[in-house]
Amino acid sequence: MTEVDSVVAHGAHDLRVQRTELPMMSASEVEVAPAVGGICGSDLHYFHDGGVGDFTIREPLVLGHEIAGTVTRIGGDVIGLPVGTRVAIDPSRPCGTCESCRRGERNLCTDGRFLGSAARTPHVQGGFRRRIVVGAAQCVALPDDLNFADAVFAEPLAVAFPAVGRGGPLLGRRVLVTGAGPIGALIVLAAHRAGAAEITVTDVLDAPLAFARRLGAHATVNVAEIDGDGVIEECDVAFEASGAPAALPTCAARLRPGGRLVLVGLLPPGLVPAPGNRVVTRELDVVGSFRFVGAEFRAALDALATGLDVSALLTGRFGIDDAVAAFETASRREESMKVQIVFDGS
Amino acid sequence: MTEVDSVVAHGAHDLRVQRTELPMMSASEVEVAPAVGGICGSDLHYFHDGGVGDFTIREPLVLGHEIAGTVTRIGGDVIGLPVGTRVAIDPSRPCGTCESCRRGERNLCTDGRFLGSAARTPHVQGGFRRRIVVGAAQCVALPDDLNFADAVFAEPLAVAFPAVGRGGPLLGRRVLVTGAGPIGALIVLAAHRAGAAEITVTDVLDAPLAFARRLGAHATVNVAEIDGDGVIEECDVAFEASGAPAALPTCAARLRPGGRLVLVGLLPPGLVPAPGNRVVTRELDVVGSFRFVGAEFRAALDALATGLDVSALLTGRFGIDDAVAAFETASRREESMKVQIVFDGS
Amino acid sequence: MTEVDSVVAHGAHDLRVQRTELPMMSASEVEVAPAVGGICGSDLHYFHDGGVGDFTIREPLVLGHEIAGTVTRIGGDVIGLPVGTRVAIDPSRPCGTCESCRRGERNLCTDGRFLGSAARTPHVQGGFRRRIVVGAAQCVALPDDLNFADAVFAEPLAVAFPAVGRGGPLLGRRVLVTGAGPIGALIVLAAHRAGAAEITVTDVLDAPLAFARRLGAHATVNVAEIDGDGVIEECDVAFEASGAPAALPTCAARLRPGGRLVLVGLLPPGLVPAPGNRVVTRELDVVGSFRFVGAEFRAALDALATGLDVSALLTGRFGIDDAVAAFETASRREESMKVQIVFDGS
Amino acid sequence: MTEVDSVVAHGAHDLRVQRTELPMMSASEVEVAPAVGGICGSDLHYFHDGGVGDFTIREPLVLGHEIAGTVTRIGGDVIGLPVGTRVAIDPSRPCGTCESCRRGERNLCTDGRFLGSAARTPHVQGGFRRRIVVGAAQCVALPDDLNFADAVFAEPLAVAFPAVGRGGPLLGRRVLVTGAGPIGALIVLAAHRAGAAEITVTDVLDAPLAFARRLGAHATVNVAEIDGDGVIEECDVAFEASGAPAALPTCAARLRPGGRLVLVGLLPPGLVPAPGNRVVTRELDVVGSFRFVGAEFRAALDALATGLDVSALLTGRFGIDDAVAAFETASRREESMKVQIVFDGS
Repeated sequence: MTEVDSVVAHGAHDLRVQRTELPMMSASEVEVAPAVGGICGSDLHYFHDGGVGDFTIREPLVLGHEIAGTVTRIGGDVIGLPVGTRVAIDPSRPCGTCESCRRGERNLCTDGRFLGSAARTPHVQGGFRRRIVVGAAQCVALPDDLNFADAVFAEPLAVAFPAVGRGGPLLGRRVLVTGAGPIGALIVLAAHRAGAAEITVTDVLDAPLAFARRLGAHATVNVAEIDGDGVIEECDVAFEASGAPAALPTCAARLRPGGRLVLVGLLPPGLVPAPGNRVVTRELDVVGSFRFVGAEFRAALDALATGLDVSALLTGRFGIDDAVAAFETASRREESMKVQIVFDGS
Repeated sequence: MTEVDSVVAHGAHDLRVQRTELPMMSASEVEVAPAVGGICGSDLHYFHDGGVGDFTIREPLVLGHEIAGTVTRIGGDVIGLPVGTRVAIDPSRPCGTCESCRRGERNLCTDGRFLGSAARTPHVQGGFRRRIVVGAAQCVALPDDLNFADAVFAEPLAVAFPAVGRGGPLLGRRVLVTGAGPIGALIVLAAHRAGAAEITVTDVLDAPLAFARRLGAHATVNVAEIDGDGVIEECDVAFEASGAPAALPTCAARLRPGGRLVLVGLLPPGLVPAPGNRVVTRELDVVGSFRFVGAEFRAALDALATGLDVSALLTGRFGIDDAVAAFETASRREESMKVQIVFDGS
Repeated sequence: MTEVDSVVAHGAHDLRVQRTELPMMSASEVEVAPAVGGICGSDLHYFHDGGVGDFTIREPLVLGHEIAGTVTRIGGDVIGLPVGTRVAIDPSRPCGTCESCRRGERNLCTDGRFLGSAARTPHVQGGFRRRIVVGAAQCVALPDDLNFADAVFAEPLAVAFPAVGRGGPLLGRRVLVTGAGPIGALIVLAAHRAGAAEITVTDVLDAPLAFARRLGAHATVNVAEIDGDGVIEECDVAFEASGAPAALPTCAARLRPGGRLVLVGLLPPGLVPAPGNRVVTRELDVVGSFRFVGAEFRAALDALATGLDVSALLTGRFGIDDAVAAFETASRREESMKVQIVFDGS
Repeated sequence: MTEVDSVVAHGAHDLRVQRTELPMMSASEVEVAPAVGGICGSDLHYFHDGGVGDFTIREPLVLGHEIAGTVTRIGGDVIGLPVGTRVAIDPSRPCGTCESCRRGERNLCTDGRFLGSAARTPHVQGGFRRRIVVGAAQCVALPDDLNFADAVFAEPLAVAFPAVGRGGPLLGRRVLVTGAGPIGALIVLAAHRAGAAEITVTDVLDAPLAFARRLGAHATVNVAEIDGDGVIEECDVAFEASGAPAALPTCAARLRPGGRLVLVGLLPPGLVPAPGNRVVTRELDVVGSFRFVGAEFRAALDALATGLDVSALLTGRFGIDDAVAAFETASRREESMKVQIVFDGS
């Protein structure tokens, strides 16, 4: 039985670097040595709250689902992924047999396994450790000139790109993005690339808004200081990426009749105050966007491989032994955008 | 100056039958003698609350926007609508020049005139009176064999049909309808005609649920007596037609991942508790449906003319002098579905 | 090695009932004894032309992909499908790894295996034989009260229903269907259930048009005798189900501006004369519909299980030894709609 | 009665600069002195063929529908457009009452008036003359810093932008554009702005392909010299902008299963050879895109006003007296992209 160093959440504010047991590898699986892992907002929720949305940590959980690394062993049925292949890992493993999968909506799989998630118990252990076992089908080989630090952005990009797609064609459209954290920032980047005519971004801190401007925002509003209602123009499409319920009425108030609101940020579980009457009378479309299918993960990686520059978003790198410091730094939104954990690969 | 008997709301619980002045008729307008008028939920809101949603009565308002009658005079530029023509009246008169109209979304006109509405001040006076002046373009001639009592259903049908269309193709789909008032009932009728495999309907009263079963519902649940969560099956598409915020979590809880929720019932103004997290994680589509374009009004009338039977929905008829009784009867949901006011036309 | 009686196409007009070897069964597969098999238009193309569309018979091919029967043996990993289970067989087996599958568009799998098809070589042998080995995931258990003769309609229904769905919501719409063979007839049935206001059907023979009227067509036109252009009304949505290129200009000529044409019938390979200019200037949508995903097969079976009556379409039943007569009868469109082959199951 | 110098097509190869009578101006109309007019492909068709598509010149026709100029007189009901206002002219004037208009699809108006078009008789006279009378609603005021030469690109942009929108979200998608004339070039520009990952462009001449590369094409193929089938990669969305039927099979062959083909170029009237079978079996979407609504014209003008640079496309400018030379130059695709006629405005 192999044990490897891992970043393990035991509950709120109880994150430990400790050895965990590596599971057996089946014939269709591979073992990967992670090189870089990105800390995501849901990792931070596990760190601070001991859970995220409806999911609560019920047993020790290795965090991490933004992972790139090198294949170190392969199962008997695996072809085309020789040891030594540099890969990005798609953290989703849909079941293939639920009603959603049968409809082809694998992003909506109701029985899937997602790396580093407490959605099911036993939890699916994540990728912040020195070795990880995943399905070969989850691995996408990296082009030679794509480094690991960029490649791990494939996962959050695979969230942001379909979310932007859910907004419909953006060419010439006026866009509002509420929340300028890593996902909001990538949505700004994507909306800018998609030809949005005007992109307005709101947040409650100046630092992330500065990032948003660098990534393509035409205007930013610190809604902790200024009432957005007075200064935000009417828009065609809004993306809610803050997870803050207060953003919902802002979005609805600024959308034109027939406009479209894409909810990306994970809102608090249960009920939140929402502008339902306005959705009816203005005939708005409000659509959720949460996960992605394999083709979307590959498309995100392709975008990185062909020059999409996300390096401005990387604000910190820490070794695995400094994982707690990494999480604390990532939590300070006034200074951090994306923080990565670097594994030595040995 | 002509004055005609009218049903006028002066504020909450202050409905009077009194004479009002008929406005001048322009060259593109016609004068119609209403024969029948249907009382709609928004009329009842004006009656009980002195307003509906964000719109408050600020001056006396002739109610009524479900109207059919006979043309009695025509403006100089009107062709094809001779005096004596029996018509149904499309209560919408979009401005034609706002951004929504320029996009072709005349149902979303931000400067339109809607019969019997306090949305703008001066209010647009409605059709519950012995004469009314409307645009010739708002009048659709009735086929000989369509009587007025059926023809006035064109307006609520023109609400229900596009709402059902917003739900996407329903053939073989499982449908939930919350609220079995007149609009909910017409949505049941429409969903049934659209081939829904299963239609479940909820309400807080048994009487409207009995109507729903007659119109095509396969199952009904009185959610005042039974907790719907335990008995309502998963559905593909939900239609919220009650206007009760409590229906929102019910709909979201029963929708399959990727399902679609159409909001038709006018929710209370401002913020209502809504299952935002579920919209995100299940990637639901929540879309509002409020009004209609001229082609949809005509399609609804065509459906009535070619045999769509709505007569079961008509539960009461009152003369104009008994308008207050008509409104009181219409307000008793345990006995009434659609109540009409009958004008003698003289 | 097991050999079983099979209906084998060797080329054009060379259909033989002969013994063929049953392949080995893997752990995830089951063996089924077909009870009933329906003859499809593509089977007839193999019979008459030695191929269908771009696919040509290059080796003996057991025909048949509309199959229901009883499970006779199961592989080691199969659960929930005990021997004796009555099943309908979904003839599609998508690869799960091609780009289409990764997008969730399993109906568009570019490396799939479809029963009784020469699309790939070696051909995928079909279901017109006394035993067949298929993936357990392809089998859907039948409710007790659904007989085999009805259950085999699940496959053509699973073609017709999504095709109708590709036409968008049909409630109150005017529909044209060109071609009243089995697929066209099922589209008429489905469009009728989906609430189409008017359904006009064309064919070059009177007999299938009589079927169409029974299934819900409001008007039929024998375009071998009457020039359709003069008599067919404008429509909102057209379904081309004849496979005859001559139907394309008819559809385009009768569609309203912005109308939608769904191509279902397999057109001749290569180029066919099409009204391209009209597609541009009237901004038509022309969309192809060919296959289905697993959820759609199940939905079709559900429709049959809950009372969709297709029995009127069944015009002939033959034993396996009379397979050639069955194919010849099925080819006479003036007398046949759907012809089935009945296996004794022993 | 006023007569003004005009560019008049009398039939194929019979273009004359001559005086024509200016019509009376109604109360809702304005008189504009054109400053610049762009020559469009349909103008060239009238010039060379005496017609375009199904429309044939039956009486002298003033050409031109890409027009910007200065208001010189206004009708009595016109507000907000004082004499001296610099405007771009939307050449479309939908009827407002046909079924398409009632549906809100004003771009599909079946009784509209389009500047410089033989679609109806009497023809609607165009804008290549020293004065023109148009509806006030057709005029959009120019921002001060937008010159006339750029502003006249609003019309072809208003064709290209919605066409690109008909292709769906392009972010990260692989795009093919067949035909690199002015509309194809603007589609390349728009697809590039909409974030397409790869844009491949085909034409039969090198010169327009060089323009396409400057506007964002990643690869170009001269299909007069190279068989495109061998070198063009699979794409997600194709735009046919050549009007050459030979491009249809190229597009269909390169589209992925489930891909989308937008037909923009006006194909020859009647039937053209098209890959119908491939549309069926690959479940392609083929959609036409022809005209635009008022909001789209304004959006195009907004894009120009906020920095969209189209100046590279302007390859020639001629005075009205040299109109024939302008048309001849514009016809030489090996040297010209967009050619403009400049009026002195007096």
